[in-house]
Amino acid sequence: MKVKVVTRILEANDRIAVENRKRFDQAGVFVVNLMGAPGAGKTSVLERTIRALKDSLKIGVIEGDIVGTDDAERISALGVPVVQINTGGACHLDANMISEVLDDMPLDKLDMLIIENVGNLVCPAEFKVGEDMKMMVLSVAEGHDKPLKYPLMFRESSGLVLNKIDLLPYMNTDMNKVRNDSLALNPKLNIFEVSCTTGEGIDRWTQWLSGLRSA
Amino acid sequence: MKVKVVTRILEANDRIAVENRKRFDQAGVFVVNLMGAPGAGKTSVLERTIRALKDSLKIGVIEGDIVGTDDAERISALGVPVVQINTGGACHLDANMISEVLDDMPLDKLDMLIIENVGNLVCPAEFKVGEDMKMMVLSVAEGHDKPLKYPLMFRESSGLVLNKIDLLPYMNTDMNKVRNDSLALNPKLNIFEVSCTTGEGIDRWTQWLSGLRSA
Repeated sequence: MKVKVVTRILEANDRIAVENRKRFDQAGVFVVNLMGAPGAGKTSVLERTIRALKDSLKIGVIEGDIVGTDDAERISALGVPVVQINTGGACHLDANMISEVLDDMPLDKLDMLIIENVGNLVCPAEFKVGEDMKMMVLSVAEGHDKPLKYPLMFRESSGLVLNKIDLLPYMNTDMNKVRNDSLALNPKLNIFEVSCTTGEGIDRWTQWLSGLRSA
Repeated sequence: MKVKVVTRILEANDRIAVENRKRFDQAGVFVVNLMGAPGAGKTSVLERTIRALKDSLKIGVIEGDIVGTDDAERISALGVPVVQINTGGACHLDANMISEVLDDMPLDKLDMLIIENVGNLVCPAEFKVGEDMKMMVLSVAEGHDKPLKYPLMFRESSGLVLNKIDLLPYMNTDMNKVRNDSLALNPKLNIFEVSCTTGEGIDRWTQWLSGLRSA
């Protein structure tokens, strides 16, 4: 019974995601669904990405949080269009939430729309929102056991940003295990090791991302 | 419609939680629901807690993960009874999952049962499992904005373990903001600052926890 309800919710979600995707394609905007656990550094990665790319790409952002506008304010300070969604309790964004705010986003003027999902390593990976690509951010401070414990997001993502590598000298995270377990789950996964504090690795990541847009 | 379904699920859950609680009370076991984001260090806190208390308290553990038995193996190595629940995809434990494994746990021989929930800062706080107390672990590496972004878990918890304080010199986490925002959400919250790497702060936390059992 419970499974049937969940299946029906996912099917309804996928139909709306297809509609969103049509709007994105008509506007010629490349859409990234950015996911990760709370505190992985999704907003910091987004800030670094916008700073690196905003002269060459017109980027818009949809921020998903349970409550509050902190992240939207951080992104708005960079001078790009941003809409904040408050889920009110839901632990992930769904296609309908995105659909409802698309009129507030100048899609025709954008090259890329980045949707920052609610901080959660589980459910966001189950709900399509009409994106071209799912990306995830994992902080190395979360430990090396995350790929095997939360496999779906690693499987669903095209890219994995391993963030906070400036902290590696002070912890016992086994980066080979993170890389190997991630690639075992998803051999096509593109992995980027970055620090939003020092800026290390940001160039390689943003060059890859902007290359996808023009591909 | 969706809200109605969710309400019905929560009501059914609460009924089973009451049944679980009766079994815990009959056995005289104090039950802790341990929650936190992926990588906050819940299992490490649990290991430190068991090492500190196992001579004075008989502790059992239920481990909740989407897949795998890594955490149960870590706990089992400490010589305490442990049962692993795999949710298969669900992002939280519910009362029924706990009910189904209670026959595998020697409740009559335990003083305390610690249930480590799935790594998630959102949904575990919504589902009672029959516990006496909810506890949460937050890694200081997750940043100081978490209380205001994920308020429910802070409101529902009796205690907050701020873990990985050994990393504080290498990051810009504002601990006053974490403490003040947490206490604004929940003035009765007991806050413990610990490092599972160095052992700092573990004594104060475990003394408080064992005092609750005998209270």
